Amino acid sequence: MKDMLGREELIPVEKALELLFAYAPFKRPAEISLPIDKTYGMIISRDVISPEDLPSFHRSTVDGFAVNSADTFGATEGMPSYLNMKTEIFMGETPRFSLGKGEAAKIATGGMLPDGSDSVVMLEHTQQVDEIIIEVVKPVSPGENVIHAGEDAKKGKCILKSGHRLRPQDIGALAGLGITDVWVYRRPQVSIVSTGDEIVPADKPVKPGQVRDINSYTLAGLISGAGGIPVKKGIFSDKYDLIKDVIENSLRDSDMILISGGSSVGTKDVTAKVINDLGRPGVLFHGVSLKPGKPMIGGVIENTPVFGLPGHPAAVNICFEIFIRPVLGIQSGARENRFNSRKRTIQAKIARNISSSPGREEHIGVALEERDGEIWAAPLLGKSGLITTLTGADGTIVIPLRKLGIYEGDTVEVTIFNE
Amino acid sequence: MKDMLGREELIPVEKALELLFAYAPFKRPAEISLPIDKTYGMIISRDVISPEDLPSFHRSTVDGFAVNSADTFGATEGMPSYLNMKTEIFMGETPRFSLGKGEAAKIATGGMLPDGSDSVVMLEHTQQVDEIIIEVVKPVSPGENVIHAGEDAKKGKCILKSGHRLRPQDIGALAGLGITDVWVYRRPQVSIVSTGDEIVPADKPVKPGQVRDINSYTLAGLISGAGGIPVKKGIFSDKYDLIKDVIENSLRDSDMILISGGSSVGTKDVTAKVINDLGRPGVLFHGVSLKPGKPMIGGVIENTPVFGLPGHPAAVNICFEIFIRPVLGIQSGARENRFNSRKRTIQAKIARNISSSPGREEHIGVALEERDGEIWAAPLLGKSGLITTLTGADGTIVIPLRKLGIYEGDTVEVTIFNE
Repeated sequence: MKDMLGREELIPVEKALELLFAYAPFKRPAEISLPIDKTYGMIISRDVISPEDLPSFHRSTVDGFAVNSADTFGATEGMPSYLNMKTEIFMGETPRFSLGKGEAAKIATGGMLPDGSDSVVMLEHTQQVDEIIIEVVKPVSPGENVIHAGEDAKKGKCILKSGHRLRPQDIGALAGLGITDVWVYRRPQVSIVSTGDEIVPADKPVKPGQVRDINSYTLAGLISGAGGIPVKKGIFSDKYDLIKDVIENSLRDSDMILISGGSSVGTKDVTAKVINDLGRPGVLFHGVSLKPGKPMIGGVIENTPVFGLPGHPAAVNICFEIFIRPVLGIQSGARENRFNSRKRTIQAKIARNISSSPGREEHIGVALEERDGEIWAAPLLGKSGLITTLTGADGTIVIPLRKLGIYEGDTVEVTIFNE
Repeated sequence: MKDMLGREELIPVEKALELLFAYAPFKRPAEISLPIDKTYGMIISRDVISPEDLPSFHRSTVDGFAVNSADTFGATEGMPSYLNMKTEIFMGETPRFSLGKGEAAKIATGGMLPDGSDSVVMLEHTQQVDEIIIEVVKPVSPGENVIHAGEDAKKGKCILKSGHRLRPQDIGALAGLGITDVWVYRRPQVSIVSTGDEIVPADKPVKPGQVRDINSYTLAGLISGAGGIPVKKGIFSDKYDLIKDVIENSLRDSDMILISGGSSVGTKDVTAKVINDLGRPGVLFHGVSLKPGKPMIGGVIENTPVFGLPGHPAAVNICFEIFIRPVLGIQSGARENRFNSRKRTIQAKIARNISSSPGREEHIGVALEERDGEIWAAPLLGKSGLITTLTGADGTIVIPLRKLGIYEGDTVEVTIFNE
């Protein structure tokens, strides 16, 4: 949309996200079967069904004596039950005997119960009378201190649902069931295209007027941290043909494309034109009521999300968290909920007044510090092009669209930067 | 310490941690110089000093006209200042002219200011009168919309302190300064020794009485997630000589050793004896008032931390978070504070009464759900050996040592599981 002066009108963040999500489903990475130790943090693409009962035998959960619970009923310190000891049960072995009435067998945690036993008396509740006889001073109920065969996982039951992100304990559970390979979605591949006539690679000398490529490094780290695979396509001059060429090429092997800017109006116009020319629906929004991050472009080419990011380093972090991380989350195939998002927040008191222009959402870097047991957030109000403002910040606070500012001592929610 | 019955007395978690930290400094990984794109999440080992001024030139932060601010003083819509346009300044180029009185030059965001100019008027506050003349309708102050040379980072100034964990924006800042290699601490190498006569590898068939190696998979993921490098040493029988041999061997190449158990009393005694026999101070605690996790062993051999972990899969996660993650954090060389720890917590209401034995700290897995806009935590009260209790949980709650339980509807703090 253009305003009266022919300029693009800014839209609120909320509206921009709405336009974006209206174009889901986005392109999704293919699934692949991988050895489980390569899948930490990945998303499973098929329900995992237990191939067997776990445990495969009745297992003791304590160190003690396997018994028939009926033999212990009514046992007390004053009136213990007396039982005859059979051979000890060794770890990892099947007992080669069965327990008769009035008999007990020494068993360790994890040991297999012999036939004829239904429970385990803890060592602490027994006394050895002689080499053959033990006293039991407390009764056990049937099944006490025992995990029954199949109690943990039943053969044929779903133990992990498609869309689940594999945490360490989930991989452990797969190993426990003998599942050594698992179907997962590949990590989304994200192309990073750096543009701008003034941008030079970080390892090259800079001439006056030039700046080094900062944003592709920041983006690569943010993408990896969000579970994607960053692919740097290089630095390109702000020429329509060059940009079109690299985007067209990137569409073939990418699940998402980030065009890092080229912060001038001219560059942005080239980026927007390329996105519009390469496929439908093209640019969905161009310019957001957001500081920093106003020149943000969001679009979709067929079903590949394509973003044009502002050149300001500070804006890159903010725009990634607002627009790119959620889309990557959808593309990953994860059934995420707000409980397992990786966002970490902390309540703090703001260390000084901050005024904000109404009509735009403002994100401000803050450094956290403790004073008299309270957490305070000191805003870092550097100019928008500064990179050291970001390296000194622990996280960000948001001043919403319709708020004019916040007062010293107000409680704010600080979102801690991701690593 | 032994109690009256000759059993090891349990000590509180707090006391165990105290004993452990009293033996710091622990072994620390060596430093290494690496290309910056290999150092995301690593800890820098030397202060990083800016090798140059950033930016290296006076840079515009907006699209507009470079001017001499004195030429705009008093300008209004009704009484604009009229300025003569010079050639446009192109991105990445040094302007080959200087600005005289009453002159302006078109400049884009990121462009280099010409000599004779001290500020930039935003495009929005100008009107083009003809091909040569522009109107300025709002004054600028000296330095407005400009980042001065060296304003972001001054040559010789420390920009990142030793002990800082490198986040994406920090790597971006290094790139911006042309620093392409950086000194960091190596990731701590953690050996995992699995013991237990009943344990078989995950890819091997199990006989009755045997179980597959679950914990080495869980531990490997937790170690990676905490910034370490897991090294699986294999599965060993509960024999003193075998365990001693692999620990002795692991001491040479590890910053930490985890012995995953062998949950029976006998195994634990072998582990404790090996730790005591291999160096000072040896075992610091053996048995903690903790559920799950009671049989936990903590020790130090010379300055390498060595832990004997309970065999219960549920205990492995809990003991890792309580004992191992903090020690790994210290070994990593990070100046962590409670703001940048990776712990994520959420407040929830507990979905049912839970009773707990006094005198032990109890950690309970919970599944989170939303009901009428409130978050509820449903405790998963499975038996301690179950692995599916953990795969179904989103996080854990703690019932402290001296508390007898919690009531349905009480607010609890849930620590979300790490990935």
